[in-house]
Amino acid sequence: MSASLQVDAAGRLRHFLDVEGLSRQQLIEIMDTAESFAGVGDRSVKKVPLLRGKTVVNLFFEASTRTRTTFELAAKRLSADVLNLNVSTSATTKGESLLDTLRNLEAMQADMFVVRHGESGAAHFVARHAAPHVGVINAGDGCHAHPTQAMLDMFTIRRVKGEFTPLTVAIVGDILHSRVARSQIHALNTLGVREVRVIAPQTLLPPHVEQLGVKVHHDLVAGVRDADVIITLRLQRERMDGRLLPSKHEYFQRYGLTEAHLTGARPDAIVMHPGPINRGVELDSGTADGPRSVILQQVTHGIAIRMAVISMVMAGHAVEATA
Amino acid sequence: MSASLQVDAAGRLRHFLDVEGLSRQQLIEIMDTAESFAGVGDRSVKKVPLLRGKTVVNLFFEASTRTRTTFELAAKRLSADVLNLNVSTSATTKGESLLDTLRNLEAMQADMFVVRHGESGAAHFVARHAAPHVGVINAGDGCHAHPTQAMLDMFTIRRVKGEFTPLTVAIVGDILHSRVARSQIHALNTLGVREVRVIAPQTLLPPHVEQLGVKVHHDLVAGVRDADVIITLRLQRERMDGRLLPSKHEYFQRYGLTEAHLTGARPDAIVMHPGPINRGVELDSGTADGPRSVILQQVTHGIAIRMAVISMVMAGHAVEATA
Amino acid sequence: MSASLQVDAAGRLRHFLDVEGLSRQQLIEIMDTAESFAGVGDRSVKKVPLLRGKTVVNLFFEASTRTRTTFELAAKRLSADVLNLNVSTSATTKGESLLDTLRNLEAMQADMFVVRHGESGAAHFVARHAAPHVGVINAGDGCHAHPTQAMLDMFTIRRVKGEFTPLTVAIVGDILHSRVARSQIHALNTLGVREVRVIAPQTLLPPHVEQLGVKVHHDLVAGVRDADVIITLRLQRERMDGRLLPSKHEYFQRYGLTEAHLTGARPDAIVMHPGPINRGVELDSGTADGPRSVILQQVTHGIAIRMAVISMVMAGHAVEATA
Repeated sequence: MSASLQVDAAGRLRHFLDVEGLSRQQLIEIMDTAESFAGVGDRSVKKVPLLRGKTVVNLFFEASTRTRTTFELAAKRLSADVLNLNVSTSATTKGESLLDTLRNLEAMQADMFVVRHGESGAAHFVARHAAPHVGVINAGDGCHAHPTQAMLDMFTIRRVKGEFTPLTVAIVGDILHSRVARSQIHALNTLGVREVRVIAPQTLLPPHVEQLGVKVHHDLVAGVRDADVIITLRLQRERMDGRLLPSKHEYFQRYGLTEAHLTGARPDAIVMHPGPINRGVELDSGTADGPRSVILQQVTHGIAIRMAVISMVMAGHAVEATA
Repeated sequence: MSASLQVDAAGRLRHFLDVEGLSRQQLIEIMDTAESFAGVGDRSVKKVPLLRGKTVVNLFFEASTRTRTTFELAAKRLSADVLNLNVSTSATTKGESLLDTLRNLEAMQADMFVVRHGESGAAHFVARHAAPHVGVINAGDGCHAHPTQAMLDMFTIRRVKGEFTPLTVAIVGDILHSRVARSQIHALNTLGVREVRVIAPQTLLPPHVEQLGVKVHHDLVAGVRDADVIITLRLQRERMDGRLLPSKHEYFQRYGLTEAHLTGARPDAIVMHPGPINRGVELDSGTADGPRSVILQQVTHGIAIRMAVISMVMAGHAVEATA
Repeated sequence: MSASLQVDAAGRLRHFLDVEGLSRQQLIEIMDTAESFAGVGDRSVKKVPLLRGKTVVNLFFEASTRTRTTFELAAKRLSADVLNLNVSTSATTKGESLLDTLRNLEAMQADMFVVRHGESGAAHFVARHAAPHVGVINAGDGCHAHPTQAMLDMFTIRRVKGEFTPLTVAIVGDILHSRVARSQIHALNTLGVREVRVIAPQTLLPPHVEQLGVKVHHDLVAGVRDADVIITLRLQRERMDGRLLPSKHEYFQRYGLTEAHLTGARPDAIVMHPGPINRGVELDSGTADGPRSVILQQVTHGIAIRMAVISMVMAGHAVEATA
């Protein structure tokens, strides 16, 4: 379903909703495009005229300053006009439905919706109902997917490690509720890494998680042994004192990453985190700020990846309009 | 009063506050200008450099995401810089008066105020006290006027119907509290339509409404008979369960537009609504989304009309500055 | 400390944090640069391409629509991209520390932070921890400093009076809590005015205030005698009914400026206020709007001064990057 919705018959991105359903070649094309934008942020003039006169709407039904900010910067560096709409506090309070909101923004000749929503499947819903001239990008939907986050992680791994096939990647934390983890696992397997591991207590793993193509570990030290890449996940505050975890202190004791845990990992292993970090929960500051950490590179690459998918989706629609 | 305030001796728009007081020729000039902008939204680069380096301030004392958004897009597509100020939550909380807010924004060399306010007459007040170099556009004031909404409705009617003189136009709903209806009635009569009708229960009609140049109907089927255009008005939530109406369900029974009511209308009659729609209150979804509906065209035309009045008012001031 | 942090070895501005520590020559250079931008606001196209492709982040930990607006306009008129972040309501609610917020924005290739914070020293803290490529401007920190406000005041005085050396300047009001007053006193003494006076009740003066280089007056009429410039300070609402003042009415009786108090001042004395004015508290409307008032010129000059320090700090970093 995703595949046909987000890719046209010629294999071009029409929307970017999910890593699932994209081919290895398509993921590589996204990273190659991001590579061409990675230099823009280092230039004196951080701007390319590619999308001048296009209107990108950040349609956020759930607040996320960081994600909204990176999309806003990416769109502005492509010279697009950006409209930020926090929908929970606007039209819907006047009783307007989501579909009516979409129809109205389309009638204003918006070219793209960047959608963030608390419910899984929301971005697919928007893409399914969007006008033909409008591209949709999923900026995170419920526990389902966060594909630009996964792609910036892949781009970061590729920039540091070069090849995916020899890598062992361990993902630590709340796999159960993480849209990021789901997208990462799909991307890593599609890109052909040797092994993907998840490390978590049983309570934070989805049922039948092995079917996603991962090896399950409950012990942190065993899980990171010989790993090339360790991805720590953000622990949502609302989980910290809930039924699934004894306490955030105990979580850190068992799953908080420190240098001591990393002695068994590959000497050149890197540590990642999608941010914002809870220091002393998912990892300690020595690790977050240490030489293995590529956490801030992830943020930088997030701009390049978002410029890439925005421009690719926009180009996909331009081709259609010409055809 | 309006006339001299919003039009200079040579007939150029200095402000755009009210349809009342403008001549047929002036309304046509606004629509002709909008016509020249209507194509911009369909272009690949939706932008003209007309107002580069101008500062347009959206001065909203009352929240309205939709109206603010269309003005923001219109100004950006004219290449102006846009400043969004939600005044209720800013300066006034520091005890600053409206006049001081105006003086300060003028001192920052703002070129235009787009004013939305809950009180009737607010935009006129601002225009009367604005510095000579500043243009003012009324984006809705109390129950008084919403002239850009009325003009986008006229523009939509003209684009579909061509001529105004042979038309019968019926306006259905809460005429009493509607700034939109007042502006529409003035515009329609100025443009010389054959007949303007209002259809509402007595409780939602202003006293002596006939003096505005309308025929009064209380029955929906009779009111839309032979009509070319049916404009439904938004029913404000705060009216729905008040003293003036039995209930929103009963309102829909008597005044909610459905295909069944339209059998007596002209075969090519169109249905309009200023949005956002309360589906199942002012009209049913079959009608809102049906072949007669031009509701989304109204939204698209709203951008062109706002580009037109922003650029005309700005041009009026440029002429003065040169003189 | 400030000096070395905000000025490099060649005397160029790296950050703009405080008037204290800057030389007379440096203050004059800021005003000369502002002079070159003062004409931009009067032009038909109020924009120069100097900072195209640069990203300026308004990092406001304390709401201030007016200051944020002037920085936003200044940056946009320099053609920079502007990102407004109200931090109290975003990342920190997710438990992210200030340093992590900075690191993330730097990783997004922000070029400049304009920092507003309720705690004294916050902008210095940010500057001390910012990446080498990032410039920091203090937009007001606690009771400590508000250097762009002080410089726009100096610029206004220079434009009206020409020379600083012959001037007697009286500052009236809550010196104790005013970051503006501290910055003004430093600037005025550095620029070599003949005399700086402060006029306030003992309860609104800091201990040992004379050591800042001012003469103390408790009586308004005596304090403004022969003054060339009278600067009134904003009385914060939270002080009005507190322990330090009997009441705002009594404050106006003793320290509220009216024409009657000004008979002893120089015939061409000017009256200033940083805004927003509490009319009938710090001064009456006759004085605020009278011929001596340059309060709105201050606002206009605020844009030019902010354009000046933004461009100078950005240029300081560009030189470093090239070296």
